[in-house]
Amino acid sequence: MLEKFDLSKKMSKSEYKELIEPARIKLSKLQRQAKEAGISIIILFEGWDASGKGTLINDLILPLDPRGFQVHTIHDPTEEEMMRPFLWQFWIKLPAKSRISIFDRSWYKRTLEDYVEGLLTINELHSTYRDINFFERQLTDDAYVIIKFFIHIDKKEQKKRFKKLEKNKSTNWRVTKKDWKHHKQYAHFLSASEEMIEATGTANAPWYIVEGHNQRFATNKVITKVTQILENNFMEIKKRKMEKEKEQVRIPSSVINNMDQSKLNKINLHQEINDQNYIKSLKEHKKKLRQAEYQIYKRRIPVIILFEGWDAAGKGGNIKRLVSNLDPRGYEVVPVSAPNEIEKSYHFLWRFWKEIPKAGHIVIFDRSWYGRVLVERVEKLCQESEWKRAYREINEMEKQFINFGGVLLKFWLQIDKEEQLLRFKAREENPDKKWKITPEDWRNREKWDQYKSAIDEMFFKTSTHYAPWTIVESNNKKYARIKVLRETYQAIKKRLETNEVVKLEKEKQ
Amino acid sequence: MLEKFDLSKKMSKSEYKELIEPARIKLSKLQRQAKEAGISIIILFEGWDASGKGTLINDLILPLDPRGFQVHTIHDPTEEEMMRPFLWQFWIKLPAKSRISIFDRSWYKRTLEDYVEGLLTINELHSTYRDINFFERQLTDDAYVIIKFFIHIDKKEQKKRFKKLEKNKSTNWRVTKKDWKHHKQYAHFLSASEEMIEATGTANAPWYIVEGHNQRFATNKVITKVTQILENNFMEIKKRKMEKEKEQVRIPSSVINNMDQSKLNKINLHQEINDQNYIKSLKEHKKKLRQAEYQIYKRRIPVIILFEGWDAAGKGGNIKRLVSNLDPRGYEVVPVSAPNEIEKSYHFLWRFWKEIPKAGHIVIFDRSWYGRVLVERVEKLCQESEWKRAYREINEMEKQFINFGGVLLKFWLQIDKEEQLLRFKAREENPDKKWKITPEDWRNREKWDQYKSAIDEMFFKTSTHYAPWTIVESNNKKYARIKVLRETYQAIKKRLETNEVVKLEKEKQ
Repeated sequence: MLEKFDLSKKMSKSEYKELIEPARIKLSKLQRQAKEAGISIIILFEGWDASGKGTLINDLILPLDPRGFQVHTIHDPTEEEMMRPFLWQFWIKLPAKSRISIFDRSWYKRTLEDYVEGLLTINELHSTYRDINFFERQLTDDAYVIIKFFIHIDKKEQKKRFKKLEKNKSTNWRVTKKDWKHHKQYAHFLSASEEMIEATGTANAPWYIVEGHNQRFATNKVITKVTQILENNFMEIKKRKMEKEKEQVRIPSSVINNMDQSKLNKINLHQEINDQNYIKSLKEHKKKLRQAEYQIYKRRIPVIILFEGWDAAGKGGNIKRLVSNLDPRGYEVVPVSAPNEIEKSYHFLWRFWKEIPKAGHIVIFDRSWYGRVLVERVEKLCQESEWKRAYREINEMEKQFINFGGVLLKFWLQIDKEEQLLRFKAREENPDKKWKITPEDWRNREKWDQYKSAIDEMFFKTSTHYAPWTIVESNNKKYARIKVLRETYQAIKKRLETNEVVKLEKEKQ
Repeated sequence: MLEKFDLSKKMSKSEYKELIEPARIKLSKLQRQAKEAGISIIILFEGWDASGKGTLINDLILPLDPRGFQVHTIHDPTEEEMMRPFLWQFWIKLPAKSRISIFDRSWYKRTLEDYVEGLLTINELHSTYRDINFFERQLTDDAYVIIKFFIHIDKKEQKKRFKKLEKNKSTNWRVTKKDWKHHKQYAHFLSASEEMIEATGTANAPWYIVEGHNQRFATNKVITKVTQILENNFMEIKKRKMEKEKEQVRIPSSVINNMDQSKLNKINLHQEINDQNYIKSLKEHKKKLRQAEYQIYKRRIPVIILFEGWDAAGKGGNIKRLVSNLDPRGYEVVPVSAPNEIEKSYHFLWRFWKEIPKAGHIVIFDRSWYGRVLVERVEKLCQESEWKRAYREINEMEKQFINFGGVLLKFWLQIDKEEQLLRFKAREENPDKKWKITPEDWRNREKWDQYKSAIDEMFFKTSTHYAPWTIVESNNKKYARIKVLRETYQAIKKRLETNEVVKLEKEKQ
């Protein structure tokens, strides 16, 4: 497919001069408009070594206000990056609101270099394509603009350019052994590139092939394309962006009204444990968990344990028992509340990606990304379209974490309405616990049925085979604590038994 | 000095049991109060290998709500950390508002291990002490609480513990060759520790020595100390914290009223450059700067270029010319506006520390930390005591950057009041530039004299020999741009000629 591009395309100096200045002025204006509209833009450059990506980026940014963009050059992953699922490093480099991130190489580096060099199996390649498509769709759904360029030159031209660079004293350091090796593998890279373009050229984030032999032609094409895309889509992007920011949203239409079908109704909340067994079991499990913590550290397995549940269901107490015998250097507890102004200006998963545990560590989330489909849905803090697509986005994120080799536990702490009332009242009467109860808790309680619908839909849509929910019957606190400890230990043990290795990027090299 | 501590101190089981529970309950309550009051707490543990720091940290956190603290274990610096001034890694680990950071080893690791191992010269040791004292003072002035423990055991006890660990199969991996090497160097470490304690035991952040032979005694001492410190200082810390947050502050008293003495009056703003020279010089300097960019990358010199100046003085245009021929992979432009809610909850320098360039890279600040003593002072966005101590804090930060081997350029773009008026009007008349001018600009203009006083005081207090201000006469834009380019190039050239090497942490090892 790439061979079909006419690489002999040229642009004369005079034509270039005539076209480029107005295009630049237009682009500069568009940057300003995008900034004002709060639009975030991602422009990435992939393509052959010596295809002129650096120069193209320079030409592209010339008309831009340097205060509004940042160029990221993607090298081999650092230690910190190796220890997380592969897209982590890109999530944390997303442009903030109103800003532009330009990538010199990108998440596609993996599907080309790593794959051609034999560091990825064909299965891993396909799962990488899938993760990338998910990633890009999540962003464009959230009103980010993604523009992807592939700069194409043929083998002969690449050789010519390498030779020229080598001849010149001040540039010969730029041509490495690896470059020549890749040059020899041109045919492999060609088919890998074509497959990549095919597998990831989506409607929301299509590829633009740029014929790279003639610099003027290429520059003009890149600037014109960026300008066109922004111009053509500006009104639509702006509309989406504004919708996203609207506080007032329609009333959710998809609540499950049939309460009889609720999963929560079928739970037997009257399970108990006697004190003697509780104390014995607590001690046992804490000891086992400490050992497990050391094993996951040695085996570099990352673990996420998240807690959701009704107010006063006992999240704090459960977390406390869970960590009390752990080595504090191996875990972190992340309390989640409403997103702040910065967090709100990114995709809603951004703040959770930032907190993903590195290999060998445990992160415990006290509330989590499920807030999107619970409180944010019920309290109408986001749009219907946003929480509706969140189920899928959440499943995709969790899948990536599991594929990386992680253990994920999702606990729902279930109490009934009567038990909650008892606990609220007990808190109000105890001066040491009174701070735990707020008017908001009472308000939430009034919306019990709405929450129940949301919870049921959440179970239905996010109980995947790779990341199922564990419902913890919590009317009896002691029973609940033991169940959480046991389930956590079992899940880690099971993972340890698989002997599956967390394949850090470094080890591949 | 350390020998004077009675290491035979013990605590019986029964005494421990009696004391520890009430102490824990108290601590737990204090954590909650501190959280409510928005106080941030740092607790650090230094001391001998095998002195029981890990166990002490475990005992300390037992009564704490795990959602409110984070434990940081300090290892050898990562690649990212090596590339910045040594305190950077600790700035970015500061606890957010209402949170506790617990450090297992800390910034003191350097003054012990690195020094004893001969990686620091005596001069570097002393400058590290100084930087640490500055760092801690900046934090405690800003209502952070710092509690520092040194856990002491003698050589014999250390040996006994190493042997015991080695005997046990499940712990023998914990005793390394390095540990035995350090054990042999006990005397060296002892004197280094004593010197450290003496040099950094300040009134605002004193050391607490904990006799570590008996675990119960040590645990009780640590918990009691933390509780005491928080209790005794709670009201005072809370007061300071609330003062910090007060929006309404007193009117600055220290303005320099004698306008005749203003440095700004003495500047000849009527310097010009003709078009021919401008174009030639612009081209020349851009080329030179590109080469310099490559040199600093190779030599791993970090560069900060910051711009301050009157509204419409031409910051944007200057930055544009400065970067237009640079490789975008080597620089970043950081626009600075009012701090957001997160940034406000840290020390004001936190957000700038986060942006410090790594070795070999350039960061250009469009406005900077000087906002504290300019707009925040004049508009009364911070307290008088805060901007008054900011001069010193700024000097200290800049010094650390220079000592690390960096180049720092501070440009003040000066125009007179008439020129500003002309530019404001020109902007208002040009539909393409109208967005650049806001009612705020006009309001600021009315406070010209107040700003002038603040600027003069800023020059007076922050023009250090290691980081002087460069005033750029900017009534003529072209003249200004050439001056900025020339001064930048000269400063980098001068730095390159020193042949001084940026001593990254890694190279020391």
